[in-house]
Amino acid sequence: MRNLFKKGFASDNCSGVSPEIMQALAAVNKGHYPSYGEDDTLLENVREQFKTLFGNEAEVFFVFNGTGANVLSLQQLLKPWQAVVAAHSAHINEDETGAVEKFTGSKILTIETIDGKIRSEQVALFLKNVGFQHAVQPKIISISQPTELGTLYSCDEIKALTDFAHQHNMLLHIDGARIANAAVALDKPIREFTTDLDVDVLSFGGTKNGLMFGEAVVFLKKNLAEGFLYNRKQGMQLASKMRFITAQFSAYLENELWLRNAQKANAMAQFLGKKLSEIPYIRLSRKVEANAVFVIFPKEIIAAMQKQYFFHVWNELTNEVRLMCSFDTTEEDVLGFVNALKN
Amino acid sequence: MRNLFKKGFASDNCSGVSPEIMQALAAVNKGHYPSYGEDDTLLENVREQFKTLFGNEAEVFFVFNGTGANVLSLQQLLKPWQAVVAAHSAHINEDETGAVEKFTGSKILTIETIDGKIRSEQVALFLKNVGFQHAVQPKIISISQPTELGTLYSCDEIKALTDFAHQHNMLLHIDGARIANAAVALDKPIREFTTDLDVDVLSFGGTKNGLMFGEAVVFLKKNLAEGFLYNRKQGMQLASKMRFITAQFSAYLENELWLRNAQKANAMAQFLGKKLSEIPYIRLSRKVEANAVFVIFPKEIIAAMQKQYFFHVWNELTNEVRLMCSFDTTEEDVLGFVNALKN
Amino acid sequence: MRNLFKKGFASDNCSGVSPEIMQALAAVNKGHYPSYGEDDTLLENVREQFKTLFGNEAEVFFVFNGTGANVLSLQQLLKPWQAVVAAHSAHINEDETGAVEKFTGSKILTIETIDGKIRSEQVALFLKNVGFQHAVQPKIISISQPTELGTLYSCDEIKALTDFAHQHNMLLHIDGARIANAAVALDKPIREFTTDLDVDVLSFGGTKNGLMFGEAVVFLKKNLAEGFLYNRKQGMQLASKMRFITAQFSAYLENELWLRNAQKANAMAQFLGKKLSEIPYIRLSRKVEANAVFVIFPKEIIAAMQKQYFFHVWNELTNEVRLMCSFDTTEEDVLGFVNALKN
Amino acid sequence: MRNLFKKGFASDNCSGVSPEIMQALAAVNKGHYPSYGEDDTLLENVREQFKTLFGNEAEVFFVFNGTGANVLSLQQLLKPWQAVVAAHSAHINEDETGAVEKFTGSKILTIETIDGKIRSEQVALFLKNVGFQHAVQPKIISISQPTELGTLYSCDEIKALTDFAHQHNMLLHIDGARIANAAVALDKPIREFTTDLDVDVLSFGGTKNGLMFGEAVVFLKKNLAEGFLYNRKQGMQLASKMRFITAQFSAYLENELWLRNAQKANAMAQFLGKKLSEIPYIRLSRKVEANAVFVIFPKEIIAAMQKQYFFHVWNELTNEVRLMCSFDTTEEDVLGFVNALKN
Repeated sequence: MRNLFKKGFASDNCSGVSPEIMQALAAVNKGHYPSYGEDDTLLENVREQFKTLFGNEAEVFFVFNGTGANVLSLQQLLKPWQAVVAAHSAHINEDETGAVEKFTGSKILTIETIDGKIRSEQVALFLKNVGFQHAVQPKIISISQPTELGTLYSCDEIKALTDFAHQHNMLLHIDGARIANAAVALDKPIREFTTDLDVDVLSFGGTKNGLMFGEAVVFLKKNLAEGFLYNRKQGMQLASKMRFITAQFSAYLENELWLRNAQKANAMAQFLGKKLSEIPYIRLSRKVEANAVFVIFPKEIIAAMQKQYFFHVWNELTNEVRLMCSFDTTEEDVLGFVNALKN
Repeated sequence: MRNLFKKGFASDNCSGVSPEIMQALAAVNKGHYPSYGEDDTLLENVREQFKTLFGNEAEVFFVFNGTGANVLSLQQLLKPWQAVVAAHSAHINEDETGAVEKFTGSKILTIETIDGKIRSEQVALFLKNVGFQHAVQPKIISISQPTELGTLYSCDEIKALTDFAHQHNMLLHIDGARIANAAVALDKPIREFTTDLDVDVLSFGGTKNGLMFGEAVVFLKKNLAEGFLYNRKQGMQLASKMRFITAQFSAYLENELWLRNAQKANAMAQFLGKKLSEIPYIRLSRKVEANAVFVIFPKEIIAAMQKQYFFHVWNELTNEVRLMCSFDTTEEDVLGFVNALKN
Repeated sequence: MRNLFKKGFASDNCSGVSPEIMQALAAVNKGHYPSYGEDDTLLENVREQFKTLFGNEAEVFFVFNGTGANVLSLQQLLKPWQAVVAAHSAHINEDETGAVEKFTGSKILTIETIDGKIRSEQVALFLKNVGFQHAVQPKIISISQPTELGTLYSCDEIKALTDFAHQHNMLLHIDGARIANAAVALDKPIREFTTDLDVDVLSFGGTKNGLMFGEAVVFLKKNLAEGFLYNRKQGMQLASKMRFITAQFSAYLENELWLRNAQKANAMAQFLGKKLSEIPYIRLSRKVEANAVFVIFPKEIIAAMQKQYFFHVWNELTNEVRLMCSFDTTEEDVLGFVNALKN
Repeated sequence: MRNLFKKGFASDNCSGVSPEIMQALAAVNKGHYPSYGEDDTLLENVREQFKTLFGNEAEVFFVFNGTGANVLSLQQLLKPWQAVVAAHSAHINEDETGAVEKFTGSKILTIETIDGKIRSEQVALFLKNVGFQHAVQPKIISISQPTELGTLYSCDEIKALTDFAHQHNMLLHIDGARIANAAVALDKPIREFTTDLDVDVLSFGGTKNGLMFGEAVVFLKKNLAEGFLYNRKQGMQLASKMRFITAQFSAYLENELWLRNAQKANAMAQFLGKKLSEIPYIRLSRKVEANAVFVIFPKEIIAAMQKQYFFHVWNELTNEVRLMCSFDTTEEDVLGFVNALKN
């Protein structure tokens, strides 16, 4: 029988919590703290850490999870008759049980892609409806960095999208559930591929990369954040014992834990990709850019391996499988999986 | 200057996390776990613990916070043209920034009360609109146990409300953010004042009583829970690293930690009430039933005390002040406050 | 048996359509017209008529009914975490089956009144929550002119409310389902008690005063109307054969039909009030200001009269009855009712 | 300059109102009527007419427009986490400014089609997510009859979809904005391609086929209609002077006016199609089945013709143009257009 707790490659969400984060949680667990982060110096300090990363205009708000970060970012910036343009494969479109539509009342206009990345020329197709009262009005371009297919937007590609967005009175949102993995892969300070490219708002993920819970919404332009406090509370995403999120993020940014964790995950993905590509009957279906490895497995292999490991079949038709590495994946974990495959 | 971290009486949300809970979090932080609680034996075990408490019909779902627990319970059981009947002072009406209206689309019909408790005769006033297409149709009675005013519903009072609700095709919801304090105060097994009285759904709180985060929605009738999984995800309240909520609840129910914690808080509220009532110029404004103490302070005392302690003025007009005790409040904390008052 | 079609005093909604309106509908029913009012000179002309009434800043949009006019006005000007402040007796609170909450996601903060009119001092009570993230933020004051209780706001009273609203970053909305009756009663150009008092938006009713269907949303400040086209369509209130609303409004404003109709209704209400007050056992419970007459009937009279006439008992406890006059009410109708009463 | 009121082929929404309907409106405009259709014998009669058409289970409700009919049908039958499956080209997806998403909170899952028609095999692709908590759950299949591309579903095709739907716990909705044109084209009693095929709910259009305003929602199974009264009022679609919708529908069904009107429109579409197909450089791009004609025009012709006639370019890339005939289109209108084309 499958050992549920064996480290596998199903999702970075299956991993645990970094020791540094556990220590931070323990350290902050003394005495009383203001609830909801109100009037709290710890929160002030973390805000400064975010400004150091993203610049002085950056306004950060903590929420519980990625769904909350994405949905509330969009709710903040959209009227219900305005639409989000996103890749069909985007998490906000495919994996949130319609949370965007339910909470914002807005429509998602989707673009079919091969690699999970959208181009401004594709967004441009929706401009024909601008000013037409019978159609939703495109307002936000939302991209995932890295994408759900493990690919990365280059700085030039992001710049092309923010330029396009701002020329057409639109905004750019990044779903950065794995933004740390992107930062490592791009090997640039995060500011260079967000603030400096005129990105408007970022869901800055933590849970997939070593936190216990909590994500950050980072508005890169102060004025976009106005009233977000109310939006968050009404959106059921305000934590009463806020210190246990702020303490995590403080430790996460300190000494670049976020980058060190992502570095490990990305390295293991490279290692896994390399090992898999050495097996004759297995083919990498996508370039390994961050912490995801996509491979085509023979169908019978999938069944056999899923008895031992939990992982997701991405495409039933092509037998494409997604293998995620996380900060706690080790070389032994990779070799164990590869050896099992070989048998 | 006020020490923000000094233990005060502002809210049980200002308290930290029980050592048992911290241990449970550490213990569960090893290896990989299924994300979202899917296919997870730990979750199965906690479900059994809840069935032990509430009976075999009970279906439990974990969410992030109390707003989520209340709003999603109501969303599950309401059509948008159906209304919730609640005390005006109810947390869902006064302190959720309109989260109920935003997410459910429903209206809250409010009842003015003296003690935070509603009676079926008051609910009955809304029945005149049943069948009238121009008015929302009352569907759920929501009560807080204990109430926001620190008072308790007796078993008879709850029974009267569930009877009334079911006679009129309505349901009874309990906001149990502090249900543990109620259980201790009533000195009865929780089942006796919920399941056995035919209550329909309960928000079972944990965060205010020693958890780090996480609350439970407990449907006391299996069929009411149908489809709640989707409701929760769409409602942005599904935790990816679910094990860190389930582990907390497991430890919380084990060895009755939830009752032991509440016992401490309630005892300290009694002690604080007693000590305050001995001071001549101070008057208890409400009977101390759970872990809240309401007192009338002279106005100048409020200002002086708030320099040292953080607490809420409940009613600016009458100078009524709310003092909350929590599981970590000690006799020293109480005496420190009382002595400061005397000076 | 009651003749359903006998002219009674149940509601001005029970009346039919003015002959001038029927002629306008017939006249516009030739050839093809642009649908949805797009690129339509007829619509342009009506817009000019509204500017003549309300000033050059006025932007008018037609919708189907009063619910639509009110809800979409509010939707246009509110974020979901912002609230509407209104009298408890307001139509938007009592008689729209929760349409405001459903569509805007916002909360209505209600004020108890004796006469259906709210004062700025009452609105001021909600300011204590401004800036408090746990509470909805008051943004719009909505008044009905005349009120649901047949009373009128004076110019001074409206000015006090708009001043208060604008001092506190709020807006003033008027539900003018019967605004024509108010205009006649105040005996002033409508501009003097709307635009000139700095009112922000008005639901300008027509259906209750001789139209077949159709109401107008009038933004009195151009910038408030931005994007309303999309809001209206998404709000299901865009008529495809728009000409049949514009033609009605054109005829309604032409030669002051709207005022002439309201003049008749108001005069009949005065006449009915006078005749009723001459009957010893009947008491007018409110001053007759527009087209509503509120009287206290002995309980047995109510039952007897309802066998012959359809009308609403406003308050079951006090036996207060509402009698509405409409543009087609005649002296004979009034005398018929009064004579029936005397028997 | 273009004469806006010349009868063209832009949309059947540009046509006026049938004389029979104008007479019915005039006839019902006498005396007082109960408002909102409450307790109204006229409404009872129309309900019987609908039962005659659709069977005794049919429950009909009148609303203002097609957006309202479609959105409220879906709202009635969906929970927000359930989805509608529809053709990408469906009016509810493309032309309602996101009204479905805004009001229902649900997602529309779209299917790309060549002819506007969806097949159950395409719907089946969404079944993979049934039971998966991260994805919306397909609940309603919505088809347009005729489609937005002028095509028709045969009885067999509809039966295949209702069978599929009911096998998978789904329902079938028909957007019948032009259902009369379908009835004529199929040359069958409407019951044979709705009730008898186990369709669940139908938006029964009238405005495009000679009414002034008003559409009908017809639930073909009584139990599906429960509570729709409240849904309609909350959805801003309850007319106060309801008699002016019921009278129209009464006249519309009487003596088969609805079929006679559609017959004219369909015949003119056939005539127009035939005439156009005789012009060498013009190609019919789709078979003419109901009252729409789709043709490919040379690009320069489009520009020249749009100076004289208003019509919609359906596809900018292929120069496909949509020409709609309506009940009031005459042979002269067709010949005028064709002659203008030839010049």
